[in-house]
Amino acid sequence: MYAPSKQPEHKLTMIPGPIEFSDSVLQAMSTPSQAHTSPEFVKTFQEVLQNLRKLFKSADPHAQPYVIAGSGTLGWDFVGANLVNPGDSVLVLSTGFFSDSFAECLRVYGADVDVITAPVGDVVPFDQIEKQLAKKKYTAVTITQVDTSTAVVSDVAKISEIVRLSNPETLLIVDGVCSVAVEDLEFDKWHVDFALTASQKAIGVPAGLSIMFASSRAVAKAEAREKDSTFFASMKRWTPIMRAYESGSGAYFATPAVQTITALKVSLSEILAEPLEKRFAKHAETAAKFRKELADAGIKIVPVSENVAAHGLTAAYFPEGVEGPKLLSTLASKGFTVAGGIHKALVGKYFRVGHMGYSVYQGHVDAVSKAIVSSVEELKK
Amino acid sequence: MYAPSKQPEHKLTMIPGPIEFSDSVLQAMSTPSQAHTSPEFVKTFQEVLQNLRKLFKSADPHAQPYVIAGSGTLGWDFVGANLVNPGDSVLVLSTGFFSDSFAECLRVYGADVDVITAPVGDVVPFDQIEKQLAKKKYTAVTITQVDTSTAVVSDVAKISEIVRLSNPETLLIVDGVCSVAVEDLEFDKWHVDFALTASQKAIGVPAGLSIMFASSRAVAKAEAREKDSTFFASMKRWTPIMRAYESGSGAYFATPAVQTITALKVSLSEILAEPLEKRFAKHAETAAKFRKELADAGIKIVPVSENVAAHGLTAAYFPEGVEGPKLLSTLASKGFTVAGGIHKALVGKYFRVGHMGYSVYQGHVDAVSKAIVSSVEELKK
Repeated sequence: MYAPSKQPEHKLTMIPGPIEFSDSVLQAMSTPSQAHTSPEFVKTFQEVLQNLRKLFKSADPHAQPYVIAGSGTLGWDFVGANLVNPGDSVLVLSTGFFSDSFAECLRVYGADVDVITAPVGDVVPFDQIEKQLAKKKYTAVTITQVDTSTAVVSDVAKISEIVRLSNPETLLIVDGVCSVAVEDLEFDKWHVDFALTASQKAIGVPAGLSIMFASSRAVAKAEAREKDSTFFASMKRWTPIMRAYESGSGAYFATPAVQTITALKVSLSEILAEPLEKRFAKHAETAAKFRKELADAGIKIVPVSENVAAHGLTAAYFPEGVEGPKLLSTLASKGFTVAGGIHKALVGKYFRVGHMGYSVYQGHVDAVSKAIVSSVEELKK
Repeated sequence: MYAPSKQPEHKLTMIPGPIEFSDSVLQAMSTPSQAHTSPEFVKTFQEVLQNLRKLFKSADPHAQPYVIAGSGTLGWDFVGANLVNPGDSVLVLSTGFFSDSFAECLRVYGADVDVITAPVGDVVPFDQIEKQLAKKKYTAVTITQVDTSTAVVSDVAKISEIVRLSNPETLLIVDGVCSVAVEDLEFDKWHVDFALTASQKAIGVPAGLSIMFASSRAVAKAEAREKDSTFFASMKRWTPIMRAYESGSGAYFATPAVQTITALKVSLSEILAEPLEKRFAKHAETAAKFRKELADAGIKIVPVSENVAAHGLTAAYFPEGVEGPKLLSTLASKGFTVAGGIHKALVGKYFRVGHMGYSVYQGHVDAVSKAIVSSVEELKK
């Protein structure tokens, strides 16, 4: 699926995004200039939009993919600006820093936000969700499928069931920044209304694209808004543009990131070259092996159980007797960039390692695992 | 300054952006992955921000450059969301489609917008601006330095003088999407408060970056806002991030487009390798020669005089007896993409040719000029 790398030797980026990119994705980044409405680029963008439907497992022709120059953060603005009206109640299920930031974004747009915060390293208990939904009517519920700050994965299917049982009109919104293309996300089957992600994580493309997927009722809700909240993040303005490209003709609202979208075309074709289930299983297996190796070396994992541990990254505590910054710099000297922590309750106490996409298929995860275990041993001496 | 191209043969993109990119810029697009807070990328971003100060000719340490994943359009949102409060009066000087879209964006944010529309192909007369400013107090005046729909260039220095004479508190806002790095823009000297542009025009980098520059008083105004209008387009959230990178340390609000910013570093160093005045003169000379060749072949230019004609692109009417779509497809078959028109009063009647950056130095403009002249002759037969 991925040819062996011919990239110049460089420190491997083993953080939870940006991840390492395949050679063919990087080559696509340097595609010579094409007009954004040229037949060549229209064909590229068309394939991207069609393949996103496969990645999100959606067969609903009225659901809508969006690819827009921006970042994952911009996806939150799309939710706040298009799917929630000022004063609407939104329930945020928080499993970490990114869930809380999403809540902050929604408040900027005037939403009345309630947050249920999971214990650090765990998910929000289902009965708490049920209880809260029984107490109050929500326009939308947001789930961060994988919170990159804690490496916890939430059960979107089960939460969707709970939400629909309580109120089928509540929109189900999934932040899939660190999950799409590594965790299963059944957009139609699980009745997701809006999922947002970004290019630089499991999708395996350099940062710079906000990638979103809206259900038909989310599209209709955005269309029905009387007043735009923003210009650039207006679904109403973007929907016809995406439809035009997917149907094979150019259209203009803002210039698309031609080269990065060309790289996305390449990456999606690499991802879809094997069944998604096989890809998810490969990531699950790699993640479990990696965590076992760390645990065997006495390194404690942040997620409280393997059940709630994400498959695209691992968060782990610095072992006792090992200084965090020292471990990160030792790993850098061995050729690996791993990430510090950003969860405010844990900052300085843990680190995070990405194991998504290309690196999973190139042996990078084994290599970083060995480097972590040996570095911890050295530093403990 | 630019090495001769080794790019695979491809249709030359001679539209007013995206333009052709230099080999080294394209190579930088495929830089292997780097963490967004890695020392390598922090150094890259630092250099970019420092060099933007040179490009905008600003020596004010309290002025602030911003580089954000997005497009030129996002720059309008920054103005609407940060520099204008709902109900504030803004005067838009319109020289075409893009000025009008900027006005539309500002209205989304609740601005009370007045538009003075120039005659097609001309600029807004100075006395009309004076008269309007005498009638009403404006929070901001916007100028589209070059409107890409008409290829008309406005006199920012002179308009700045008029605005400051009338009311020195009025913010001067310049849409420089099709002008920065090809037309002179003296940010400090002309008392500009906010300029916005994008990567894919004269700056010579693939699309995907919104590039902005704010005066100290614009930064202060954004800081003083009590309430954010958006999350992603909040200057208050981005200012500390940009300051951190420029001072040599990483910071996080949303993941920057690492590869495209690396390409921007390369392009800025290419641009600044010669004095900006020399670059502007080269573009002016190329533009004048190109328009003379078209005029000599009986092709009428849209801008009413050489005085108001932009230096980075030309808009010209299809000659009588030549079908527009036929001319564009003939040029495509000869290896050139040029653009149709988008000004609503003229659509179908004219075409646009970009002559910015790399192409100006590689002989592409001479080549497209010859192709246009010969194609018009053939099609007239």
